[in-house]
Amino acid sequence: MRNRRGSSPLECIMMNSENIIEGKNSVFEAFNANRGIKKLFILKGNKDEKINKLIDSVKKTGTIIKFMERDELDNMASTMSHQGIIAEVEDYKYVKVEDILDYAREKNEDPLIVLLDEVEDPHNFGAIIRSAECVGAHGIIIKNRNQAMVTAKVVSASAGSSEYMRIARVTNLSKTIDELKDKGLWFACADMDGSEMTKTNLKGSIGLVVGSEGKGVSRLVREKCDFVVKIPLKGHIDSLNVSVATGILLYEIFRQRNK
Amino acid sequence: MRNRRGSSPLECIMMNSENIIEGKNSVFEAFNANRGIKKLFILKGNKDEKINKLIDSVKKTGTIIKFMERDELDNMASTMSHQGIIAEVEDYKYVKVEDILDYAREKNEDPLIVLLDEVEDPHNFGAIIRSAECVGAHGIIIKNRNQAMVTAKVVSASAGSSEYMRIARVTNLSKTIDELKDKGLWFACADMDGSEMTKTNLKGSIGLVVGSEGKGVSRLVREKCDFVVKIPLKGHIDSLNVSVATGILLYEIFRQRNK
Repeated sequence: MRNRRGSSPLECIMMNSENIIEGKNSVFEAFNANRGIKKLFILKGNKDEKINKLIDSVKKTGTIIKFMERDELDNMASTMSHQGIIAEVEDYKYVKVEDILDYAREKNEDPLIVLLDEVEDPHNFGAIIRSAECVGAHGIIIKNRNQAMVTAKVVSASAGSSEYMRIARVTNLSKTIDELKDKGLWFACADMDGSEMTKTNLKGSIGLVVGSEGKGVSRLVREKCDFVVKIPLKGHIDSLNVSVATGILLYEIFRQRNK
Repeated sequence: MRNRRGSSPLECIMMNSENIIEGKNSVFEAFNANRGIKKLFILKGNKDEKINKLIDSVKKTGTIIKFMERDELDNMASTMSHQGIIAEVEDYKYVKVEDILDYAREKNEDPLIVLLDEVEDPHNFGAIIRSAECVGAHGIIIKNRNQAMVTAKVVSASAGSSEYMRIARVTNLSKTIDELKDKGLWFACADMDGSEMTKTNLKGSIGLVVGSEGKGVSRLVREKCDFVVKIPLKGHIDSLNVSVATGILLYEIFRQRNK
């Protein structure tokens, strides 16, 4: 966490980076998704109408509002795009795997879950959450270790979609896959030596497993999967950015589901 | 550019950030693609075999090789992932728009070109280059202004694919679109109120125009396009990350071309 000019040491300690959300979209989405906003830090002289409306709304809920100089906000921010608004929010509420299945059941849809095998880059994690939300996935399962958590950078990269996405943390991804197989899910693992995505049946209850940039999906997790799918490539470079690859695979699943 | 401990002021001035490439993949791809490597900065005590092979190869070409302490390399790097190898390379060679068309002609393929209307984020620009390369696009056209250039961050985010991609810079994107229309290209603009991508004919000679995060494609450029395509969405969030969206649209074009 960066040093925050103008904040007391206690405030510094209390402002966990997972509880700070920056930028208009991210803060609006957090508010819309009913994440409690404890404090709102606004640029002095703000003239943005949407921000003013938000101030009016959160005032009723007892949120503390502080107007700050630009350099104070800059020092507080961990992303470069706070746009004059930073919020200290309640803890991000991770869900249980069961909650994701319940949500799919509620919507009367075959579960579509994204499982991440150690995606450490916050931009990639955020973009994956955003794609999963856009495609109507019911949840994301991540590991407790070697994995980006839902920090300010991730919320920002997800354009606030993290606030709507059900994200569960597990210790052992292989074990979770086994448990979900018992509940009728099929698992597709993304890798370069799989069968072509457009020629693979990706309908039904599905878990899409993607690995880290560089390492890909670990052997143990890969062995648990029912099939391996690849995105066809025809250039010199042998892999796509992990968030782009996940987006493309999710849209192939979406296309097949809606055909 | 960050201050570089251990470098002379002259060296600092001469090391333009567009000429610095960081990390194994990026440096290897630059070498493979025949970009001249002027200087190679390697972590002292390097044991990576691939890096040692590279050192042997570049020695023959008169490249200066310096072995450095970790903190010196850290100070020199603009990305967080130099992996013990940084290269000072010849200028990135932007091409002319005509070169992109020539390349498609050489390959006997309908041109597929990506046009960027002010994509300023280096992660997104890099990931777009990577997707364009993977899908076999013939080139990318960017604006001279309000647009990320091919810096170390971009090369790194592109996993080195920038070294294989033909990238042209133009002053006026609308004018370039007009000129390319005269040469038989059709232009598709990505936007939320277009027709669904899977229901739009995206075969033939095509230019895909994508805009910046937030602002999208500017009105003037959009009006020049022959059709507007959208990616279907079913979540709360009304847009994807720009590099993910571009990847999905490029793969839809790829799918239709290979059907």
